Amino acid sequence: MEGLYRRNLINALSGFKSVNLVGTQNQANQTNLALFSQIFHIGATPPLMGMIVRPDTRARHTLENIRATGYYTFNHITSDFYQKAHQTSARYTGSEFEACGLSPSYSTGHPAPYVGESLLKIGLKLEEEHRLAINGTILVIGRVVELQLPEDCVQADGFIDLEAIGSITCSGLDSYHKTERLARLSYAKPDRPLKVISLGEK
Amino acid sequence: MEGLYRRNLINALSGFKSVNLVGTQNQANQTNLALFSQIFHIGATPPLMGMIVRPDTRARHTLENIRATGYYTFNHITSDFYQKAHQTSARYTGSEFEACGLSPSYSTGHPAPYVGESLLKIGLKLEEEHRLAINGTILVIGRVVELQLPEDCVQADGFIDLEAIGSITCSGLDSYHKTERLARLSYAKPDRPLKVISLGEK
Repeated sequence: MEGLYRRNLINALSGFKSVNLVGTQNQANQTNLALFSQIFHIGATPPLMGMIVRPDTRARHTLENIRATGYYTFNHITSDFYQKAHQTSARYTGSEFEACGLSPSYSTGHPAPYVGESLLKIGLKLEEEHRLAINGTILVIGRVVELQLPEDCVQADGFIDLEAIGSITCSGLDSYHKTERLARLSYAKPDRPLKVISLGEK
Repeated sequence: MEGLYRRNLINALSGFKSVNLVGTQNQANQTNLALFSQIFHIGATPPLMGMIVRPDTRARHTLENIRATGYYTFNHITSDFYQKAHQTSARYTGSEFEACGLSPSYSTGHPAPYVGESLLKIGLKLEEEHRLAINGTILVIGRVVELQLPEDCVQADGFIDLEAIGSITCSGLDSYHKTERLARLSYAKPDRPLKVISLGEK
């Protein structure tokens, strides 16, 4: 298979992805913003999230900043600024915040920059790294230490309504999608039919 | 935070997830089917995919089977059978295929069972495992060795149109969503505006 064909095909295989802007800065306070779609839940207690980083790409600035400072942010993307988010993957010499028209935003409790335009902001602290022997890729694991999101998007049982926030998803290397809820389903037990907790009507 | 509230909240943080049914069997050919939403791309050359497994849950049957046989399958889910897919997470003693009304399907080139109802089937071979020190979770890495999908859903540049296939996404522990494309965007370069490759109209 030819290179681009293969990359497009294989990148689409996992399905729709958890796309986030990752905000960092170096020890001279130079900010960096990069788009990652290999981000995933690792555990709730303690609250842990994973991210896959290719060290041979521009993403290495993100990795260097995380290693240097110990802190980074995940920022959900909405349809209002997904084109700016995609543009952060261009090869800039300065900060992608400024180059792409996105606003760094800081909280007193966390040293890494958030994306002001994002409605769900997650502050993380580096906990663990694994180098994958097979292709040199790095798994970066962080602990969630701060959350910023609209309170009315969190339901009584803790479920976050990502459609109310407007978070989008991506597929392959360059395709962006909004979503429409089919249903929330009840906890599955043998010999008991599923119940729809809430339908997708908005 | 109380347990369920915390689990619902933290599980929603990564965003929309790559949900797949994972098919395995043990050395006595007893099949197993389990729902996983922590599945992600690791590399295109060689084609590698990762999956996070909690060894302290029923998911351990999946892990035991992968270790015993070396093979497993990822199967995309459509709105036609997402409730059956969710039901596989109930605690069954026999095979989830039979209990949930899903059909095992085999190819001559791969020993693990696929889900017959799935339109995008991925055959994998175990390559590498990492135990995450912080919470005992396992990262399982497999090489893609077989693909089954509708040929007309693969575009000229290798991009797979997951909406044409009807693959769905999930959020949190129990919410399922279909998608609607915003756009495919051109490769980002500094000082060059993005071009929309194709819009989402169906």
